[in-house]
Amino acid sequence: MDYPSKLIEEAVNQISKLPGIGKKTALRLALHLIKESEASTFSLTEALNNLRSKIRFCNQCHNISDAEVCGICSSHKRDKSLLCVVEESKDVMAIENTSQYNGIYHVLGGIISPIQGVGPTDLKIESLINRLNAADSEIKEVVLALSPTMEGDTTAFYIHKRIKGLPLKVTVIARGVPVGGDLEYADEITLGRSIAGRTLFN
Amino acid sequence: MDYPSKLIEEAVNQISKLPGIGKKTALRLALHLIKESEASTFSLTEALNNLRSKIRFCNQCHNISDAEVCGICSSHKRDKSLLCVVEESKDVMAIENTSQYNGIYHVLGGIISPIQGVGPTDLKIESLINRLNAADSEIKEVVLALSPTMEGDTTAFYIHKRIKGLPLKVTVIARGVPVGGDLEYADEITLGRSIAGRTLFN
Repeated sequence: MDYPSKLIEEAVNQISKLPGIGKKTALRLALHLIKESEASTFSLTEALNNLRSKIRFCNQCHNISDAEVCGICSSHKRDKSLLCVVEESKDVMAIENTSQYNGIYHVLGGIISPIQGVGPTDLKIESLINRLNAADSEIKEVVLALSPTMEGDTTAFYIHKRIKGLPLKVTVIARGVPVGGDLEYADEITLGRSIAGRTLFN
Repeated sequence: MDYPSKLIEEAVNQISKLPGIGKKTALRLALHLIKESEASTFSLTEALNNLRSKIRFCNQCHNISDAEVCGICSSHKRDKSLLCVVEESKDVMAIENTSQYNGIYHVLGGIISPIQGVGPTDLKIESLINRLNAADSEIKEVVLALSPTMEGDTTAFYIHKRIKGLPLKVTVIARGVPVGGDLEYADEITLGRSIAGRTLFN
């Protein structure tokens, strides 16, 4: 496509680098910005620049944070004996949204994936081991909340192998049929696991 | 949703002001930027700032332009006797993409829409009349390429009324069944117009 302006072309090229945004959507967004006030574009770009340059990560759980220690790690209301291991910050947000968990977290920053060249040393696994081994550690249970995929299982298996000598209870989140789902549409592996992992009715 | 950082929250709020982008997509984009290098965020925001602050509009056709007169208006290869009236810059891009048109353009910057409070004076209609009335005007045909909607028809009707005294041929783009479409799925109005507007087979 020929753009009427180099400025448009450059903006479209940059916007379409974002995930899930193609050239057509990028053009629509660029034309939208031209129609809006200059101030609204500057508010957007300032927010993005601030986000990228000022964002920090909690030095305990490695979650996104505004301070050196995040709100969850520094809260006195959280159960420090329960540690949930997740892949990314967005998983913390998803779990927080359920209001079903009151422990603390550990964000690995990814998942073991030989295909994408991500090994255990690229993740915050040593940091996890150090947290669990620390003399002042209160952690009694580690919940592995990783994606139910091949990579998630590999990562969970690796972490379990590294920590199985420690006096800890290691659990994984339940796998089964999704709430509101129809049994008939559940795939065999999910249904099989939900039968194998059946719990007492109460 | 609770965000782990005020920076994330502000970025999500700003990104989700863009058309077609909700809070969830905005969060995905913000987390993507955090993962990428600082330089890539700065390239993006610089492109957007440049776009918004440096963009100009051709003083003849009002299309988006890098210079005072756009590439189409200043080209010697374009047919200056043929003028196509469109709603927005993106319509110019769409028509240019077809490679079927070699005339010049006039971008109205919108369409007459009483519901949205857009009247003829909010658009570049006076500017169009002035162009057509200019002593050195070479324009012999005006093609009205407006959307086939109520607003588009109103705008076309208004423009036609204003210019019908001039020695010009006024045409509209053909309305009919889309190429590749199935007759059975065309709506009655479109099909009706395509029958009424039938042309010689050759």
